[in-house]
This record gives sequence, structure tokens and C-alpha cells, in this order.
Amino acid sequence: MPVIEIASIKPKTIVAGFDAKFIHTASMTFSFIEVKAGASLPAHSHIHEQVSFVTEGIFQLTVDGEIIEFGQGTAVVIPSNAVHSGTAITDCKIMDVFNPVREDYRNL
Amino acid sequence: MPVIEIASIKPKTIVAGFDAKFIHTASMTFSFIEVKAGASLPAHSHIHEQVSFVTEGIFQLTVDGEIIEFGQGTAVVIPSNAVHSGTAITDCKIMDVFNPVREDYRNL
Repeated sequence: MPVIEIASIKPKTIVAGFDAKFIHTASMTFSFIEVKAGASLPAHSHIHEQVSFVTEGIFQLTVDGEIIEFGQGTAVVIPSNAVHSGTAITDCKIMDVFNPVREDYRNL
Repeated sequence: MPVIEIASIKPKTIVAGFDAKFIHTASMTFSFIEVKAGASLPAHSHIHEQVSFVTEGIFQLTVDGEIIEFGQGTAVVIPSNAVHSGTAITDCKIMDVFNPVREDYRNL
């Protein structure tokens, strides 16, 4: 049973300014992302339920047209198929958790 | 779309020495646990896949007879139905993530 050291995972770039370290398990994907201030992820949707936690900084999310900002120690639940986009207000650290596995992230 | 402030969630005691703040979503349960040094969770199993992250301290897990210790910045994947138990070597903060939802934790 391996112990996974998150710091040792090789980061992959999702889009410019979003560098993610992934853990894919049988049923979930964990994405530890460092985001540069001002970087944006364009509007998209997916079948996966997503829960986003900010561990450092302030991140702005737009989910189904609703805009929110959230910061350290808080979480937002993005339902399956909800259209969402995001922009880092400051440099951020985010943990996104997905169910089921983000197969599309395996080959970034 | 509510922003969930983890610190404001009322903790519930799983077993003596394990106080957890829960977020239940459609498909997952997130459990933010503060564990007292020396506290133990007896051997058990469940259908839920579990991923455990230590954010502070050192925790000892036994999974299907294999003993490991893991600390800050590391994670362990506990497969569905694996028999596991745990003991806090020091005071710990742990995040456990389960799929599917831990319905049995809703009514603690």
C-alpha cells in the first residue's frame, strides 16, 4: 500500500497558469492546483461532480451564471453538468475532487 | 451556490478522540478530522473507497494487515471493502474522502 507524497507528483498544465498534481483512484480524481493570479479557466462542463477547496488565496468561480469568490478554508460544490468557469483573483492553491475519475486528465 | 466554511461546521465524534466535520455532497463525503494522540479507530470495512490525507501529525494505518505510518502532505488510498484500523501517533488533522456518500455518518 503506497504512501503518496503529493509534493513529489509531477505537475501537469491544465491551461496556462493552472498547474495540477493529480491522484487518480478507482472512483475519484484529486487535483492539487497552483494557479497564477489572473489566470482563467474558460466555461466548461462535465458529468463529474466537483468539489473545490481553496487552501491559499482567493478564487472566483462562475457556476451556471452565478459568480462567487471563495478563499482559504472554504469549499464549493459544482454539480454534475453545471457550466462553470474560474479566475484566480490572487495566486491560489486549490484542491479539486471529482467523481467519477477524470479520465481526460490522465493523458495531459 | 453556497460557500462552505469548513471551520463553521459543527464537529461530531466518530469514536472517542476522533472529532469530524462532514461535508456530504451528491456522490462523496468529506471528513475533516481532529484526532488526539493515542486515539484508535477499531478495524472495520465499508463499500466506500476512502482516500486519507494527513495535514498535520503522524497517523498509523493498518490496511488488510499491512501497517504504515504517514504524515503531513501524504495520502493513502483504502480500497472498497478493505479492512482497516488506525491510531494517531501524534495529535493529527486528517481529511478523509469517501465515494459514495457515507450515509451512516449523516446521523452521528
